[in-house]
Amino acid sequence: MKLAALVFPGFELLDLYGPLEMFGMLREEATISVVAEQTGAVPSTQGPKAFADSSFDSGGSYDLLLVPGGLGTRREVDNQALTGWLRQAAEQAKLVTTVCTGASLLARTGLLDGRKATTNKAAFRWVETQGPAVKWQAKARWVEDGKYFTSAGVSAGMDMALAAIARLFDLEKARAIARYAEYRWSEDSGDDPFAEVHGLV
Amino acid sequence: MKLAALVFPGFELLDLYGPLEMFGMLREEATISVVAEQTGAVPSTQGPKAFADSSFDSGGSYDLLLVPGGLGTRREVDNQALTGWLRQAAEQAKLVTTVCTGASLLARTGLLDGRKATTNKAAFRWVETQGPAVKWQAKARWVEDGKYFTSAGVSAGMDMALAAIARLFDLEKARAIARYAEYRWSEDSGDDPFAEVHGLV
Repeated sequence: MKLAALVFPGFELLDLYGPLEMFGMLREEATISVVAEQTGAVPSTQGPKAFADSSFDSGGSYDLLLVPGGLGTRREVDNQALTGWLRQAAEQAKLVTTVCTGASLLARTGLLDGRKATTNKAAFRWVETQGPAVKWQAKARWVEDGKYFTSAGVSAGMDMALAAIARLFDLEKARAIARYAEYRWSEDSGDDPFAEVHGLV
Repeated sequence: MKLAALVFPGFELLDLYGPLEMFGMLREEATISVVAEQTGAVPSTQGPKAFADSSFDSGGSYDLLLVPGGLGTRREVDNQALTGWLRQAAEQAKLVTTVCTGASLLARTGLLDGRKATTNKAAFRWVETQGPAVKWQAKARWVEDGKYFTSAGVSAGMDMALAAIARLFDLEKARAIARYAEYRWSEDSGDDPFAEVHGLV
């Protein structure tokens, strides 16, 4: 299985690396590529840089996609090189996952239209405007609709990634990975206290 | 405040980036350097590479240190360039934090001798051998002893980082960061179900 994780300047660190920790434990089953518009170092919102080893021009196809959010999404929603790559990669993939405001990028491809999805709770109203035909769910830790798994903000990506692993393999494998990471997996996708914290419900 | 995050080949992704997400929200108060033996791309246990912008020779001094674990620690405990850098950096720092098996590297500097500390629960017995004079605590999400904050495995680093922020600033700031990250912070350092899961208690 080939996984591509998208990065862009201003991605959110934990949106990317929380899920990659979980997916990365599929050592025998998955290899991870970090993909950006250009290869090389790509700064996060927090400062530390990811290293992208593939670019939009590399031409690979992937089974599994991971799209993080972060402040950079405000700019990247208008980057047609990014949304163009994302659209074709998502059409080919078996499973497409977004974390936090990463949903805004996928929404701009049109592929979420008519589907249920969720996103960061503090930035919910902005993300809604990026996909008016998406059925945005305010109270959800993550949402599964067909091959699209979208999660709430930042740390919710870890819960979502484990749910994706449960879908791709089985529940016991996801639980074993959570145990190894000493992570308390919230297995209930509806268990989301942050919708209320941020005044959405 | 200057924070240095140590990386080495085979570091664990979430050990590094979970705490850096939390510390990285101190945007006005902290700048983050990623430090390795040599600058450039450094592969994680999971595959994706960190980008180190400083090296052991760069000569900076730091207020706050973050030492992740990962499979690479098994080799790096014998890397005297690493433990030498870590010892002098830790002596100068106001606060020194380790995640998971990162405690083995700090233990090898001798600075934890006589102090309470914790580490990954699956690798607990190995880490103990790296610091026979350390008072290792089996059941702890994280342990604070003076300026040393050591955490249990992988995701425990996020709880520990928030505790370090509470110490450096105040509890409300740590809680606000957890809310922004939609993270359920376990504020009780003794709340550790994984010691039992891994047969340590």
